[in-house]
Amino acid sequence: MVKIKENDPKPWTVLKSEYLFQRPWLTARRDHVRLPSGVEHPEFYILEYPNWVNVIAITKEKKFVMIRQYRHAIGETAFEMVAGVIDPEDKDPEMAARRELMEETGFGGGEWRLFSKFAPNTSAMTNCSYTYLATDVEYLGERHLEPTEDIVVYELEEAEVRELLETGEIKQALMAAPLWKYFALKK
Amino acid sequence: MVKIKENDPKPWTVLKSEYLFQRPWLTARRDHVRLPSGVEHPEFYILEYPNWVNVIAITKEKKFVMIRQYRHAIGETAFEMVAGVIDPEDKDPEMAARRELMEETGFGGGEWRLFSKFAPNTSAMTNCSYTYLATDVEYLGERHLEPTEDIVVYELEEAEVRELLETGEIKQALMAAPLWKYFALKK
Repeated sequence: MVKIKENDPKPWTVLKSEYLFQRPWLTARRDHVRLPSGVEHPEFYILEYPNWVNVIAITKEKKFVMIRQYRHAIGETAFEMVAGVIDPEDKDPEMAARRELMEETGFGGGEWRLFSKFAPNTSAMTNCSYTYLATDVEYLGERHLEPTEDIVVYELEEAEVRELLETGEIKQALMAAPLWKYFALKK
Repeated sequence: MVKIKENDPKPWTVLKSEYLFQRPWLTARRDHVRLPSGVEHPEFYILEYPNWVNVIAITKEKKFVMIRQYRHAIGETAFEMVAGVIDPEDKDPEMAARRELMEETGFGGGEWRLFSKFAPNTSAMTNCSYTYLATDVEYLGERHLEPTEDIVVYELEEAEVRELLETGEIKQALMAAPLWKYFALKK
């Protein structure tokens, strides 16, 4: 256990908080904060998001169920794990992850366990992303994409996933972190 | 090499693009896009950021130079690597990483190499984060924090960093991804 030093940084005080923008896909807030030192920061921006999930899904044949989709912010199509938002109807993160895997790929079943939890940005974004490790999944039936989803499914060998990581083709940190963890633990 | 299928998702067309907000720490854009299928999405939000850097910094004595700071979005103080924004004055990402390590910890020198590149969010954020692996760094002299920085420096054993990863105490995906990669490659 790492011993925490006595001068551990303390929380800030929020002097004023106002919403700049509130839409289903973007909620931005500006906080006027005061640090323990007394220094004030009048413009600290926070983006509020619901929590997310993604899945390391491995079939009975030891294939990794991965997808490719176009990502508009970087203007590229890339390899990814299945991922999505935890909806209000999802009773827990695992249900959201199971739903997303079925919707985007048609795969389901198998054994599921929580594998990791990471934050996209602890400074500016309020949410976290849960990763599930799903083993022995199988194709259960037709997937159901949203009109704005254009997703191609791949079943990859473990060595191929490792190669995509090593060549930087899995670009999303929220996906690369659990996948590299998977390979670090598998020795 | 994974063979890309012929139906690989194609780029979207931007029909209209407007800035909602432009401040030094938050630039938000709304794009009205059309998918290759013809489906339109009138409200796709993009956050524009400069690229970022972080550093796996290891001293000659094999200690990892890590920090703790309070992160307002999640309301917690946590262990992190040194990280920061590439400034316009930085001639390349490595210079930004060297500058941040010196400013936040007083450590520098040693051997530096680009270790990884990840995107915080390929769908909604335009930027990436470069990680440098800096070995044989040493304490060179007093650090220079900004008034809004409250940072405590730690020199940790490799096993302690590994423990922080395993217990989920390194929360930022952009830091956990390169650190888990470090341990996956180190066998």
